[in-house]
This record gives sequence, structure tokens and C-alpha cells, in this order.
Amino acid sequence: MSERVYNFSAGPGVLPEAVMKKAAEQMLNYEGSGMSVMEMSHRSKVYQSIIDGAEKSVRELMNIPANYKVLFLQGGASMQFAMVPLNLMKNGKADYVNTGEWSTKAIKEAQRYGDVKVVATSEPEVFNHLPKINESDFRADADYVHMTSNNTIFGTSWKKYPDVKGKPLVVDMSSDILSKVINVNDYALIYAGAQKNIGPAGVTLVIIREDLIGCARPETPTMLNYKTHADNGSMFNTPPTYGIYIAKLGFEWLQSMGGVPAIQKINEKKAAMLYDAIDNSKLFKCHVQAKEDRSIMNIPFRTPTEELDKKFLADAAKEGLVTLSGHRKTGGMRASIYNAMPVEGVEKLVAFIKKFDKEN
Amino acid sequence: MSERVYNFSAGPGVLPEAVMKKAAEQMLNYEGSGMSVMEMSHRSKVYQSIIDGAEKSVRELMNIPANYKVLFLQGGASMQFAMVPLNLMKNGKADYVNTGEWSTKAIKEAQRYGDVKVVATSEPEVFNHLPKINESDFRADADYVHMTSNNTIFGTSWKKYPDVKGKPLVVDMSSDILSKVINVNDYALIYAGAQKNIGPAGVTLVIIREDLIGCARPETPTMLNYKTHADNGSMFNTPPTYGIYIAKLGFEWLQSMGGVPAIQKINEKKAAMLYDAIDNSKLFKCHVQAKEDRSIMNIPFRTPTEELDKKFLADAAKEGLVTLSGHRKTGGMRASIYNAMPVEGVEKLVAFIKKFDKEN
Repeated sequence: MSERVYNFSAGPGVLPEAVMKKAAEQMLNYEGSGMSVMEMSHRSKVYQSIIDGAEKSVRELMNIPANYKVLFLQGGASMQFAMVPLNLMKNGKADYVNTGEWSTKAIKEAQRYGDVKVVATSEPEVFNHLPKINESDFRADADYVHMTSNNTIFGTSWKKYPDVKGKPLVVDMSSDILSKVINVNDYALIYAGAQKNIGPAGVTLVIIREDLIGCARPETPTMLNYKTHADNGSMFNTPPTYGIYIAKLGFEWLQSMGGVPAIQKINEKKAAMLYDAIDNSKLFKCHVQAKEDRSIMNIPFRTPTEELDKKFLADAAKEGLVTLSGHRKTGGMRASIYNAMPVEGVEKLVAFIKKFDKEN
Repeated sequence: MSERVYNFSAGPGVLPEAVMKKAAEQMLNYEGSGMSVMEMSHRSKVYQSIIDGAEKSVRELMNIPANYKVLFLQGGASMQFAMVPLNLMKNGKADYVNTGEWSTKAIKEAQRYGDVKVVATSEPEVFNHLPKINESDFRADADYVHMTSNNTIFGTSWKKYPDVKGKPLVVDMSSDILSKVINVNDYALIYAGAQKNIGPAGVTLVIIREDLIGCARPETPTMLNYKTHADNGSMFNTPPTYGIYIAKLGFEWLQSMGGVPAIQKINEKKAAMLYDAIDNSKLFKCHVQAKEDRSIMNIPFRTPTEELDKKFLADAAKEGLVTLSGHRKTGGMRASIYNAMPVEGVEKLVAFIKKFDKEN
């Protein structure tokens, strides 16, 4: 295609077109430096200004308090599944809530390092809702509680977190960070792979309360110790320089859109349009029927038959509505409508859903 | 500056201008996909063709035998400093040769996991030459021998490796991979951070003989186990997709230049020009006086005074010859002349050295 498509990929996913254009323009010569950001020494003043700018913008966007460190790491959420227990599981006990594929992986990795209690799970119902949590099930001596804010595959998300009674709350926000206003003070550690709402794959944002740094277990590799990176401004070794630059452009784009409160309104509008179209159709059905549990980022849905699903996907692709296949665990379709998905993309998808519903 | 400079950075460093141009052209729409490579699902057919293409090209360039896996990982050489002992130190013993800053760091990390013998070191002489190795000093029961092929900071490089008597030879080739012809069969494991001769920071190339995979120590985090990545074609989780794409463009550029034998000739020519200019000057002196130990990638040198060094750096920058500061451990200057540094860049630097030598 000669035109850009509307890309509903669950991640890596759509990025703001303005960011891509700026990156293309600056590729050979960043702001008169005579070189690409990709070619810059991470120890140069100009690169320092880029990583500092990225941190400054994300601190402003999320209103991150001064007693939290902002780290730009590598390895994705999957690396955090090990880093969290290695750094935080001092007494060898942690409580996890299982709400999907990624929670399950986080639990499996943590179990390698200590005693993990799964406090609640919705696995028996293919994670099509969020489990009820009995707060008294949290253990008084657990080192932390781990949750997943938004479940990319199954399309659920937490609107309110349980009272964890002062224990550190660790949340994987990979698929909804920066999509809605949160109070960072409510969390001890937030992590997110960049490739959904931040920038390119290969950057992981970690926001960690300072008092949790410096307690890593002795077997922790230097590179997996939060202290290593906190003490060195994410530059203990060469960071993923270009990815951090794109993240900075993305943060600045979000600021230009009015910040998180403004994008939250847009996200809620986009999600409402899409859920309404699906709920009011005769053919389509959402994976998540519990409306209060629905994600505003990832919306899995399907028709009554695999045959119709295939036809939908093929016809949608012809209209420039792409990467709408559902995950194999849910089948059907999934529309991921991250911050960078324009309202027009969702409007076009909604119109296509209505047309398909009428004609099939 | 409105023009591109000649960037002698030690890394991240210069990339081929043709690669940067192609990346800029394809930024908003990769080959008719309607999206940037940065926005693509790593599970898409089009992205699979990119990572497969990257592997195919590097296998061709380095003539990598079929019994070696090629992995695209994250975390840089610093992560390998832990991954190597975690995966290979079965009996808890390894022999290391210390030839610089990075060797020292690799040794320090390995010591956390077992008994490390430093078989030879040139640390007392600020690593200004390669130490003599007595092959009988290698321990018969060491799990592997670790060496650093090229010492970025100090400017030495191995032309010939010692006989390690059948033990696995692990080599950090971060700063000279693909710069000269090697026989992969001579090595058990080769690793290299991408940001010198491959592509952007945030990608680490690992070439590992298959029989070394699957023996990781029990405490090894899943993401640090070579088997995790070998079993999943480097896609256990989302890889650094854009960096791998740039690496692919870089590999293809190198193929278009005639491959490694051709670039080796060019690299030797560039290095000879520069060493000759320095050796034949009255002002300048190389850090490495032992000619047989000299690197063809990184050339640290200096004038008799810090004042003149500063003047050199300032005047050179005005001519578009930049990032020539030496590392704080050597002082003075350093010219890193990786594959992507054009002959014209070195010619211009040589002319400037001669002019400066005459006028000062």
C-alpha cells in the first residue's frame, strides 16, 4: 500500500505519525549534530539531553514524585518477571493475582525464586473477567503484591486496586501505561515494555520507589539489579539509545495532545464507540462480557464462526484496517487501540463493523 | 551543522549513510506494509522476513556453520558478562585473560558465580599491549576460556588466539566483529553489542555452538538462558525489532561492499594511514607502541600536553572531525574507525593531523 494503514496490532503497535515523521526527518542529522541519534555516543552532551528530556517528560506526564526513580532498561516485561523477585523478594514470599497470559508468566518466573501465592485467578474462565480478590488472602509477610493492570490478550483491566495493606504493590502496566490518569504514589514499582504506549520494542520503563532499591538477592546479576541502573541514570552500560529517543518524541507528542487526562478522554471515547458497535451488533460478541472489567486498550471480539472471522479479517485488511487477528487463546479478532490510534481509525473500524454486520 | 560530520565515536558510532537513508525512507511505510518497522507485530510475516533476513545475511558474512545458533538479544556485552558464566560455568571454574576495561568487568561479574583464574593480564602497563599467555596456565578443568578480541579503550587486538586445548573459547567481539575474516569454528561462543560494527545499541549478537546450549545453572533467570532464545528464534518475547531491522540493513550494506574480506582490506588501509601519520609526526604518539598488538578499529593517541590535546579536539571539531576525545583512562584522543567510517573520513583526519603537527 502506498498509504499508511490503521494498525490495530497488540504490540509492537501503532506510533504517532508525527513521531515517525520527525524521526525520519532527523535520521541523518539530529538538530545540527551532523549525525543520527543512532550514531551518537551515549556519553555525549547531546545524548544526555535526549535521555534527560525523556525522563523529564514522563515525570511530568505521570506526575512522578521525586522519591521515585525512572529507569530505561532492556529486556521487556519478561525481564521484569525475574528482576522483581530478584530485587524485592527479601523474605522469599510474594502474592500474585493471575489475570492472563502475562500474569501467568510472571508467576512462573517468581516461583523459581520463592514461595508465590496466587491470591486470585480467573484462569478457569479463560480470563474473561477479573477475579474477586479477598483482601484478607494477602499474606502479612509477603514481600510484595504483583498485579497486571491491563490484560492485552483477554481485554480486561483493573479500575481499582485492592487494599494491599501497605505492602509494596508492583504492577505490570505494559499495555495501558499513560492511557489514563493514575496516582504513582499508590504503587511501589511500575514497569512497562515500551512497545504499546511508549515507543519501540527494546526499551522498558521502570518507575520504582527509592526505598526498594538496594536490597537485591546475592545471586542477582549486576545488570538485573535496579541499583546498578538507578545509580547510573540508566547509563551503567550503553542504553537502547535510539528507542529512548523515540520514547522522548512520543512523550512530547502526548504532552502536545494535552497530556494523560486529555488522552484518557479520547481513549474512553474510542473504546466506547467500539464496544457499542460490537454490543449492538447481531454478529459480534466481546470476549469480556463483564462491562466493568473491560479494557479501553485491547478489545477482543468475534463472530459466531471461524469462517466469518476470517472473512472479516480479509475484508477489513482491504480497507486498510490491519493486524486485527485475535490471539490464538481467544480466537476471533482483537482491536488494540493504544494512545497513538487516531479516533479516525476507530471510526473507520466501527463503520466497517456495522457494514459487515448488515451484509453478513 | 547542516552537513554530516565524520564521527569517530567509540560507540554508539558511525553507521553507513546508505543505511540511514534507507531507514529514513522506509520510516513511515516499510515496503508497502503501510507502517513503520517500529510499529509491526513481531509475530507478523513481514517482521519474520526481516529477522530471518538479518540472520541469513550475518550467517553468509561470517560463514557461520549450521551447528551454531545466531541469537539477537538485549542488554549489551554487560549482560553477556553474566550470561556466559550462568550458562557455561558448569563446574564453577573459568579462565579469563584481562586486556582492558571490559575484560575486567567480565572477570568481576564471573567471579560472582565461581572460581575465576586470570591467566594473563596487562593491567600494570595500563593495557598498552597484549599480555603473553603461557598456554600451560589454562586449567584442565576450566569450563571455558574468556577473551576480549579488541580493546576499545586501549586500542589493542588479538591477531592469533592461544591454544585452549579443546576448551570452549568465548570471545567478546563487540568492537571488531565483522571487521576481519575469522573462522567461527575456532570459537565456542562469540558475542557483540551491536553499537560499533552492526547497528544501534540495544541489540546483542550471540553466536553459540549448539552443544553449549541447555546447561544453564538453576538460578539462571529464564531471559538469561541461551536455551530460551535458541528455542524460540530470538522471539521468546518481543525482540528489539527496529534495531534488528537496522542490523539487517547494515549486514546487507556490508555484503554490497564485498563482504568481510573486502572490508578487512579497507579497514587495514584506513588503520595503516592513521598509524603512519601518528608514528611519523613529531607531536603525536600512540598509546599502543607494540605494533603487533595494535587494533585496526580503535586508535588512541595523544600530544605531549593536555593543552595541545584540547586544541586538537577543538580545531578538529571545526573541520567536522568529531567525537575524537580519548577515554579518561588514556586521555588524549581516540579515533574509532569502524566499518562504516569511510576512507574519506580517515583521509581528512590524516590531513588534519599532518597540518596540526606542522603548525604546532
